Amino acid sequence: MRTIEWDDEKDVVKLIDQTLLPGDYKIVECTRLDELIEAIKKLKVRGAPALGAAGAFGVVLAFMNEQDEATLKDEVEKLKKARPTAVNLSYGVNRALQAAMRGRSMQERCSYALEEAKRIAEEDVAVNKKIGDYGSALLEDGDVVLTHCNAGRLACVDWGTALGVIRTAIEKGKRIEVIACETRPLNQGSRLTAWELLQDEIPVTLITDSMGAAVMREGKVNKVLVGADRVVKEGVLNKIGTYMHAVVAKAHAIPFYVAAPLSSFDTAQSYKAVEIEERGPEELLFFGEKQIAPLDVKVYNPAFDFTPFELIEAIITEKGVIRDVKEDV
Amino acid sequence: MRTIEWDDEKDVVKLIDQTLLPGDYKIVECTRLDELIEAIKKLKVRGAPALGAAGAFGVVLAFMNEQDEATLKDEVEKLKKARPTAVNLSYGVNRALQAAMRGRSMQERCSYALEEAKRIAEEDVAVNKKIGDYGSALLEDGDVVLTHCNAGRLACVDWGTALGVIRTAIEKGKRIEVIACETRPLNQGSRLTAWELLQDEIPVTLITDSMGAAVMREGKVNKVLVGADRVVKEGVLNKIGTYMHAVVAKAHAIPFYVAAPLSSFDTAQSYKAVEIEERGPEELLFFGEKQIAPLDVKVYNPAFDFTPFELIEAIITEKGVIRDVKEDV
Repeated sequence: MRTIEWDDEKDVVKLIDQTLLPGDYKIVECTRLDELIEAIKKLKVRGAPALGAAGAFGVVLAFMNEQDEATLKDEVEKLKKARPTAVNLSYGVNRALQAAMRGRSMQERCSYALEEAKRIAEEDVAVNKKIGDYGSALLEDGDVVLTHCNAGRLACVDWGTALGVIRTAIEKGKRIEVIACETRPLNQGSRLTAWELLQDEIPVTLITDSMGAAVMREGKVNKVLVGADRVVKEGVLNKIGTYMHAVVAKAHAIPFYVAAPLSSFDTAQSYKAVEIEERGPEELLFFGEKQIAPLDVKVYNPAFDFTPFELIEAIITEKGVIRDVKEDV
Repeated sequence: MRTIEWDDEKDVVKLIDQTLLPGDYKIVECTRLDELIEAIKKLKVRGAPALGAAGAFGVVLAFMNEQDEATLKDEVEKLKKARPTAVNLSYGVNRALQAAMRGRSMQERCSYALEEAKRIAEEDVAVNKKIGDYGSALLEDGDVVLTHCNAGRLACVDWGTALGVIRTAIEKGKRIEVIACETRPLNQGSRLTAWELLQDEIPVTLITDSMGAAVMREGKVNKVLVGADRVVKEGVLNKIGTYMHAVVAKAHAIPFYVAAPLSSFDTAQSYKAVEIEERGPEELLFFGEKQIAPLDVKVYNPAFDFTPFELIEAIITEKGVIRDVKEDV
């Protein structure tokens, strides 16, 4: 199934629980908005484009279960704030809300919201295929592409942004290998990217995040390709570690590409105005149950960082490749 | 107790089992060389200077337990090769062997080796104090120092190289804070550096390795200070990730320092001739028992990387600070 989808028979949102991969493949069903918000906060569903669809489906759940307008508004606000950095969550919520407002009864609103949410999900797949088309032209036969975090099928409704580009390039007959950085602290690289690439039989080598520079120095990487949580006025907000890879790629004259749908663009905004989500210390203190640091150590755990345009060779969107990325992108 | 020491009553090598920290503090006793080799391979004792002492004590164990010269030679060769990258292991072995050769009986040899091994351990502490003296002059009151892996007391017999510099600076009245990178895949930063700094009440903040660039960009770091496993002709071999921090520090005009005893110098050698230890894939596939990657994914897991002198501001040794680091250091 897709990463996230609506089940018409049960009237529930179904999603792949990404916290259990690669050990377990389990589908979670959310019948109420608070369940979906919890799933978003716990990263059972994550990735900017997938959060767009999740936001829209969340609005449907709100209309389905909540009759009181004030409570409904509160719930939707909570949904928007479940994760602050990716702009797609608000984008999906707002689109579904606007569509709903055309309805006169609660039932009509619910059905308009659902229609719009499904449209967002379909669009996401189509957009990723277009990103794949444009981006695949940038990859050459034989390229080894380093990627960070998971900007794949699991970060989207399907296909993926950065990994979608790689999928399309391979579909077009290019031989591409991937180096996946494990992406601490939550290991989306080892748990999700490695898993979904192996599922498609795409050659992938796993490294720690700290090995990126060494493999570049050793000449093992031709390109870096990542996704984005938000494209702002001066650059890109993406998973923590993205900036490090961009600096290091520049130092080795390796092109650094970002693949992102226009729904992730928020270029009126400065990065300084965007909240960088800080997550709890336990993500660095424990491996699952196992303690790996003194419990009283201070931890700094931002989930994202900012990469300025000057380090980015191009941004691949569904409308084309933006090469001249600068402040007024 | 010290990281590694000889127990005169029991005639055994005692060491702190560093694989169990910070959860458990346990002392391991080795009565035979194969036990010590196993402890070295499993990183129960690690860190270039500590491996120097371990190598020397290992020779003592060999002479104590092995009467046959050919077997003894074999055993000592195995000891030298237990970990290939740090030069100190061979250095310690060779010094103890040379001392032993002055003896005429096995018993004399054993006792000369032990004397030399104890001397190496004492020297290590004295050397670290000297490194601390020279290096502390480079740190200013209020500095925040980023470090990688563990070049502390636990990497040495006592005091530490990089962390020894910080200890001495604090002893001299400077207020220094540390940012410790967790150091994947074995988390020496979170398990050991955070632990030993907190024991001494030195302020420390834990981050993932991939956050180094972000904290530098945010202006949170004044200096980077690491140890070395081997100083070669063109630069420094140290824990994987060191090169990444060096590249990123350069890009942010933050001075990058290496603290290392002269026993880690092997400057006749090119880095190309030094074996970079590649460790098993399981270190990236599991957190303890918990699987975090598909078991069939290809893994690249070098334990060290190479940082050229041009990225290094200075190397702090027990004989002084080498500022003009270049090919003929």
